[in-house]
Amino acid sequence: MFNTFGSIFRLTSFGESHGMGIGGVIDGCPAGLILDEAFIQEQLDKRKPGNSFASQAGTTRKEADKVVFLSGVYEGKTTGTSLAFFVENINQKSHDYMKLAEVYRPGHADKVYDDKYGVRDPRGGGRSSGRETIARVVAGAVAELYLKQYGIEIYAYPLAIDGIYAQDYGELSFSNADTRKYFAPNEEVIPYWDKRINEVRNNLDTVGGIVRIEAYNVPAGLGEPVFQKLDAYLSYALMGVGAVKAVEIGDGVLVATSRGSQNNDSLYKKNKEICYQTNHAGGILGGISTGEPILANAYVKPIPSIAKEQKTVTKQGEDILLSIGGRHDICAIPRIVPVLKAMTALVIADMILLQKRMD
Amino acid sequence: MFNTFGSIFRLTSFGESHGMGIGGVIDGCPAGLILDEAFIQEQLDKRKPGNSFASQAGTTRKEADKVVFLSGVYEGKTTGTSLAFFVENINQKSHDYMKLAEVYRPGHADKVYDDKYGVRDPRGGGRSSGRETIARVVAGAVAELYLKQYGIEIYAYPLAIDGIYAQDYGELSFSNADTRKYFAPNEEVIPYWDKRINEVRNNLDTVGGIVRIEAYNVPAGLGEPVFQKLDAYLSYALMGVGAVKAVEIGDGVLVATSRGSQNNDSLYKKNKEICYQTNHAGGILGGISTGEPILANAYVKPIPSIAKEQKTVTKQGEDILLSIGGRHDICAIPRIVPVLKAMTALVIADMILLQKRMD
Amino acid sequence: MFNTFGSIFRLTSFGESHGMGIGGVIDGCPAGLILDEAFIQEQLDKRKPGNSFASQAGTTRKEADKVVFLSGVYEGKTTGTSLAFFVENINQKSHDYMKLAEVYRPGHADKVYDDKYGVRDPRGGGRSSGRETIARVVAGAVAELYLKQYGIEIYAYPLAIDGIYAQDYGELSFSNADTRKYFAPNEEVIPYWDKRINEVRNNLDTVGGIVRIEAYNVPAGLGEPVFQKLDAYLSYALMGVGAVKAVEIGDGVLVATSRGSQNNDSLYKKNKEICYQTNHAGGILGGISTGEPILANAYVKPIPSIAKEQKTVTKQGEDILLSIGGRHDICAIPRIVPVLKAMTALVIADMILLQKRMD
Amino acid sequence: MFNTFGSIFRLTSFGESHGMGIGGVIDGCPAGLILDEAFIQEQLDKRKPGNSFASQAGTTRKEADKVVFLSGVYEGKTTGTSLAFFVENINQKSHDYMKLAEVYRPGHADKVYDDKYGVRDPRGGGRSSGRETIARVVAGAVAELYLKQYGIEIYAYPLAIDGIYAQDYGELSFSNADTRKYFAPNEEVIPYWDKRINEVRNNLDTVGGIVRIEAYNVPAGLGEPVFQKLDAYLSYALMGVGAVKAVEIGDGVLVATSRGSQNNDSLYKKNKEICYQTNHAGGILGGISTGEPILANAYVKPIPSIAKEQKTVTKQGEDILLSIGGRHDICAIPRIVPVLKAMTALVIADMILLQKRMD
Repeated sequence: MFNTFGSIFRLTSFGESHGMGIGGVIDGCPAGLILDEAFIQEQLDKRKPGNSFASQAGTTRKEADKVVFLSGVYEGKTTGTSLAFFVENINQKSHDYMKLAEVYRPGHADKVYDDKYGVRDPRGGGRSSGRETIARVVAGAVAELYLKQYGIEIYAYPLAIDGIYAQDYGELSFSNADTRKYFAPNEEVIPYWDKRINEVRNNLDTVGGIVRIEAYNVPAGLGEPVFQKLDAYLSYALMGVGAVKAVEIGDGVLVATSRGSQNNDSLYKKNKEICYQTNHAGGILGGISTGEPILANAYVKPIPSIAKEQKTVTKQGEDILLSIGGRHDICAIPRIVPVLKAMTALVIADMILLQKRMD
Repeated sequence: MFNTFGSIFRLTSFGESHGMGIGGVIDGCPAGLILDEAFIQEQLDKRKPGNSFASQAGTTRKEADKVVFLSGVYEGKTTGTSLAFFVENINQKSHDYMKLAEVYRPGHADKVYDDKYGVRDPRGGGRSSGRETIARVVAGAVAELYLKQYGIEIYAYPLAIDGIYAQDYGELSFSNADTRKYFAPNEEVIPYWDKRINEVRNNLDTVGGIVRIEAYNVPAGLGEPVFQKLDAYLSYALMGVGAVKAVEIGDGVLVATSRGSQNNDSLYKKNKEICYQTNHAGGILGGISTGEPILANAYVKPIPSIAKEQKTVTKQGEDILLSIGGRHDICAIPRIVPVLKAMTALVIADMILLQKRMD
Repeated sequence: MFNTFGSIFRLTSFGESHGMGIGGVIDGCPAGLILDEAFIQEQLDKRKPGNSFASQAGTTRKEADKVVFLSGVYEGKTTGTSLAFFVENINQKSHDYMKLAEVYRPGHADKVYDDKYGVRDPRGGGRSSGRETIARVVAGAVAELYLKQYGIEIYAYPLAIDGIYAQDYGELSFSNADTRKYFAPNEEVIPYWDKRINEVRNNLDTVGGIVRIEAYNVPAGLGEPVFQKLDAYLSYALMGVGAVKAVEIGDGVLVATSRGSQNNDSLYKKNKEICYQTNHAGGILGGISTGEPILANAYVKPIPSIAKEQKTVTKQGEDILLSIGGRHDICAIPRIVPVLKAMTALVIADMILLQKRMD
Repeated sequence: MFNTFGSIFRLTSFGESHGMGIGGVIDGCPAGLILDEAFIQEQLDKRKPGNSFASQAGTTRKEADKVVFLSGVYEGKTTGTSLAFFVENINQKSHDYMKLAEVYRPGHADKVYDDKYGVRDPRGGGRSSGRETIARVVAGAVAELYLKQYGIEIYAYPLAIDGIYAQDYGELSFSNADTRKYFAPNEEVIPYWDKRINEVRNNLDTVGGIVRIEAYNVPAGLGEPVFQKLDAYLSYALMGVGAVKAVEIGDGVLVATSRGSQNNDSLYKKNKEICYQTNHAGGILGGISTGEPILANAYVKPIPSIAKEQKTVTKQGEDILLSIGGRHDICAIPRIVPVLKAMTALVIADMILLQKRMD
């Protein structure tokens, strides 16, 4: 709970946007895993603002974001003990944000942190900043390294930005989505997303979108029967990423208007294995993985920091008009894609390790 | 994890559909709470098949479902120690189900239980049966008794069944929804739901729907900042109920096509308090309650047990045609409403108790 | 925490001395284990007052103590889901105890329960009664069934009662200790213990003693490196049994006057395995099992309910003289032996299941 | 579990002796606590080898050990979010230790780490090094800052070294023990301890001892009734410190030869409060604090690294004679005292925060 995620493979996260840095401690990672730091850094680079994928939609703020492992590795392999890492904050200009210290920004956690804790680090959102997700991406990358041993592959990509669906402009080709701008699932949609984001930027506004998560080769039998169901746990993981306001598994919202005869996935025998004809369930039945691909969507709200003037109050309750300028993103999608992928990897790694104790 | 829900106010659940009964142990419930057993039984009665609310849509199977507290109460008050309860299974006809023991029913957890555990209690779905939710409803009712002390009120009702929205037929009047058939939020929609369900029954099929959850007077400041966010935790709770395939908080899926200037809830000063002009956020920002009403929707799939013939296989992989007759529901909505309400109560009670340790 | 013990193999316990009964829910027990109920009942019978082993030292109160499994078993095998059990309280005479409801008995938890909870079930000690250990013994027996598959054997027996050491009267022959009165490790000491206990009874007083725990064939590598060390966890388990006031592992208190050259267990090669020459460490080094026998002692205080008059106060603070008559034990040792054995089984089963995730 | 200690006030620890450093993440520390870093550094300095207190008994290795807080503090106060800290390893000579990489040192965790993990960081003991306790001391100091608000004071000091009891040479005056060499409870015993340690050093051997822990002004009512009993939890905390092999609460081992009439602490009324005449229970009854001082002893084994030649084997099973020279301690006592004090502070802070949820 709190700042720890997972039951066996566990991440404890720390750090603030404008403090010394962001870090985490991974506990429960099996010993002997080759810790491919280049792979991990690469995943981290993908969430970085100003990278080639995110440059149009994202902030122009430079972040070095170099991960350093502080413990738990010896001669390139995990030792099975705490795997701690740290990413230093460089070049953060607190004074840009300090003007906002006394203002409750709409759509942000400023006021609720004061409600909850009484004190708050206001510099760049402090603990509630998007920079906190650095810890998730690093830990997720370690989880992915572990999952690769099982042949498990996880993909995440935007299904839509501001209502513009990629599938309306070309086929979804997501296996190399992370080489494209926006991590787009095809090239064709990119100019449409570019255009829309530019329009919205000119309107001093921001947009949201939908992110798709797919996981392949996940073995059947993962997830606990009643409360730690795989879909519940995945939902917890994805909804726990800032800006996500809805999560669906498989057919998701469509099930509310589907009929049993449509929604059921029939079983049949292929060679010696029992398989499913369809995958409306998104790879999860009764909270347990079926062996079919895990499919989920996350609905991401528009970034609350907008240049357009909006009414709000100061901490003291004075009415003000607020216009948030600076280096802010127009669309969170490109930055959130690697985070949602990482959370999915953490969930599956944890459930695999939990399942191991079932005999 | 596993069969335990919650961090401070915790429910450990047990029991199967056709075993001796269903029960649970509540741990962490504060001492001195007046345990109003009549109120608890009343909540439990609401989820019962064959009750006046659910009779049309639900099964006609009789269930006595009388809750007995086994421990943790003395002279009508909780003692602060384990509060165990049990609801005996009566009148379950296992032989009805035993025919199905060797069949993998589509849309059910039959095969995944075998995948996971190797063994399985096939009688009436065993542990994956809807009867398991009895434990949730009882524990949720205890949580509600605790929350009443804070003036917190929780409502749940169907927004739509099979695409027929209550709001299209009358105003939503949910505060006494639990006195109406289907727990409907108005009288006007009921004949339309009746009609549709009858049609679907005649087509040997089943339907799904959407359940709305609303919680009032929840204090600001609940929820942990990074991983045990209130929205993530609520999502975990709701998605962990069988048949739920999507969860949204506040504006939910709509945020994906909203703009920052629309989605942000402006703040202003009313008398001496800082308030929100709107509640697109559904009462949760940055994972922490704002003090505004908590709003969530759960999308419920159609019941997988259908009378219509469907293709499937036996445990041994033989192709068969399956038609599930008997006393099954056409629509899970009326039975799931009290469960989703209960899960919401468990989440809020737990978060209030957790927040108490914050000084 | 609270009323739950264990991380993977977990017991959640409930019940009071004079409530409806004592029970528990075991979660995380692997599926497919043959649940030998006769074996479990036999373990439970051993802690029963008035059994043949404990008759002299123990209370003469009759307790039927029949365990019933409420869930988690199908066709004699565990299903991997919650394994709940219940032992009904029969023939408890609350009125005997009600006289004590307003008195704070010295050495008992009466006052601290009021300090903690404000309310309390005073009948027979309520939740703090020794009857609570029924849940531990049942769960420990299930754990033992699991451990038998690995050839792991656990023994517990009294090393001394009131300073009279068994080893001074005969060799320690503990493998069949549970067939002897007091679970004594030899026949020779029994008359000396009988005599002492009779003397003490005549003096209206009570005695304590030391219980030895030994576990064989525990694989090397169990226990977590820093906080969930096997010795720390075992200590937690044993000290968590009422009346235990000291726990030692291996040489225990003697290490404080030993020298490094004496205390170190040298290693050598036997056939193809690396072994330890001695076992001063009690089978645990750096918190991790060595593969040598696990050895621990628990020091048990005299029963606080004494017939001799003692000064105390009522709840209202009036001075009174208290003499506790009735069916009380003179020595807790025979009843606590099966409980300490059970706790040891729970610890080792949990650590084995936890270790499984390590690859 | 694993590398995390505590249920509400929680420490997740990381780091190895010769890695980059030792650190930890404290979660659940209330917001608004003034983080007195000078106090924390002072506590850390006390465990440092080569400090004025420990110089005779301890190693002569220099350790800078400067704690840096990485997150969770803003303007000198805790923010309620993850409080991470790091202590860099400086001047560690790995090559001194690398000779030992292939040797299984008796009394050390070398072999069990290989048994458990398959891989191991052998430099200076890696994760099993005493340097790991740095994280405990820092977190314990933060807990102490929190406890000071309640007037709670914790003391730790050696009762005896190698069988030489301080009380035989002078009165126990422990409130300023941390200003004396060895943290001795009086000046008089110091020359005797000095002399003994010198003799033992000349014999190329090492010694153990007993550490006393006392906590004052702990409110009544802390500790959970059945499994997370305060004594069980404290036992877990103390036994979890390397080298501790026995723990006793209150009269401890003496209870095994005490009588009920002696061991019971009578109650009486003093002014308007109900008090205990004696404190044989060590401030804990039924697992719950009584309000009397918490009293515990920890028995510490002699340091296993001895200069005297001892038989052992290499990883490959070759017999060798090993003599461990270098900068090793003769007696762990002065270094372990601050660690045991820290663990006690962690336990009490956690139990106070847990108890807050009880209304």
